[in-house]
Amino acid sequence: MTLVGGGPGAVDLLTVRAWRALQAADVVVADRLGPVEILAELPPHVRVIDVGKEPGRHPVPQERINELLVEHALAGADVVRLKGGDPFVLGRGGEEVLACVAAGVPVEVVPGITSAVAVPGLAGIPLTHRGVTTGFHVVSGHCAATPDVSDAQVPPVTDRSGTSGPLDAAALSCVRDGTATLVVLMGVRSLGAIVAQSLAAGADPGTPVAMVENGSTPEQRVTRARLDEAAAVAAARGVRSPAVVVIGRVAAAGLLEGADERRLAGAGV
Amino acid sequence: MTLVGGGPGAVDLLTVRAWRALQAADVVVADRLGPVEILAELPPHVRVIDVGKEPGRHPVPQERINELLVEHALAGADVVRLKGGDPFVLGRGGEEVLACVAAGVPVEVVPGITSAVAVPGLAGIPLTHRGVTTGFHVVSGHCAATPDVSDAQVPPVTDRSGTSGPLDAAALSCVRDGTATLVVLMGVRSLGAIVAQSLAAGADPGTPVAMVENGSTPEQRVTRARLDEAAAVAAARGVRSPAVVVIGRVAAAGLLEGADERRLAGAGV
Repeated sequence: MTLVGGGPGAVDLLTVRAWRALQAADVVVADRLGPVEILAELPPHVRVIDVGKEPGRHPVPQERINELLVEHALAGADVVRLKGGDPFVLGRGGEEVLACVAAGVPVEVVPGITSAVAVPGLAGIPLTHRGVTTGFHVVSGHCAATPDVSDAQVPPVTDRSGTSGPLDAAALSCVRDGTATLVVLMGVRSLGAIVAQSLAAGADPGTPVAMVENGSTPEQRVTRARLDEAAAVAAARGVRSPAVVVIGRVAAAGLLEGADERRLAGAGV
Repeated sequence: MTLVGGGPGAVDLLTVRAWRALQAADVVVADRLGPVEILAELPPHVRVIDVGKEPGRHPVPQERINELLVEHALAGADVVRLKGGDPFVLGRGGEEVLACVAAGVPVEVVPGITSAVAVPGLAGIPLTHRGVTTGFHVVSGHCAATPDVSDAQVPPVTDRSGTSGPLDAAALSCVRDGTATLVVLMGVRSLGAIVAQSLAAGADPGTPVAMVENGSTPEQRVTRARLDEAAAVAAARGVRSPAVVVIGRVAAAGLLEGADERRLAGAGV
């Protein structure tokens, strides 16, 4: 089984290795996110199985996905598991590896471009920038606002400062101290809780926030706000998932002066 | 100017978009790290300018790199700036964008696979894993052990707990609390300082550490140790840059049971 990270969505942000693996596959097990347009361009003999998840809807449970990978691999098929982003960044790729290994199915991992890095970059937001910030932190905001425990990867925590919310102490420190950029994947629904927790912990209310919807696709849209207004602005402008939320000074408009997201993203998108 | 992230080193981990940009370039300004083998495969008319940096040696200063990009672009050339990893992850890509924009040169950014994510993944280390950790934090360890201020991106800080060292409070929290994986790029020389600071802050001495040298290349090597023994083990085994250091429970051998780095990396490397 080949576990392939497909990148943020644009087909040409697949790696050459991923593209070759897809062309050579017998069976491709694919998600809703990522470079789904490639599926229509595969050779006719490739069987595509859609196990795509949408928020709040899980047509194929993770356990069944694991079974599908094992069943087809044991039947002799060259199986590609195509995931959006990188398979090991909040993608449950490790569970799929474990299921295959337990069944005696060898696994090859093809890393992909994680949306956590690429989506801000395509919007003109460098996660690190000399003189501004020297590191970044990636978390999921997914479970913070949803009771669906099947994807509940981030239980609310209580910070040492006494605040509680979706962010753990390290993520909260990024926002409060400003030393590292915070990137929240699947963070639209929990944005209000993240903002409240950060402000309660003493974060600067003027900290820049950027929300990038549909990164790398023609529908890419960037919404910017101050931290204390981010949830209201997101609601007013109808920000929806899939979106990447960036919190920190690199998210300020004009950091890369004059290089707005349209010029940066260019004709390649 | 097209600012291209070339990924960790293997040529086929270039994206399709990056590969096309390189084929269509007039001038390619390249570093020492990243997919350097692609340079020999470019069409004969492509002029390659090597501005590669090695540790402690800076043949072409950053300011001169910026000038080169601008000069060739203003002369009408299609210029590709090829960087290892992703251009906005500790890669000074933002400065190159700013220099071009200031000179009226339009910029397109092509994100690349950052070594921070891909190198652990190819070694069988998922940065996040259900039930283990739900986020990760990326920092540079570069300046911590070197007096060369030209790349001094991470000044030593004093944590709220009173310890000081290369890690800021957020990164230190990852190691101490274990809630997120810490990834240190360019961290070999500062490993001793990172370990000392983490232990002084109360981190579990048994925290797993993995050091992955030459990730994605045939020379890839993984060295594992407990946190309190990591610096000694690195010295004994001669761990050298380029290397990615991963600190946290996901770095434990056997997390993806039976899926060792050779099987995971597979024939594709």
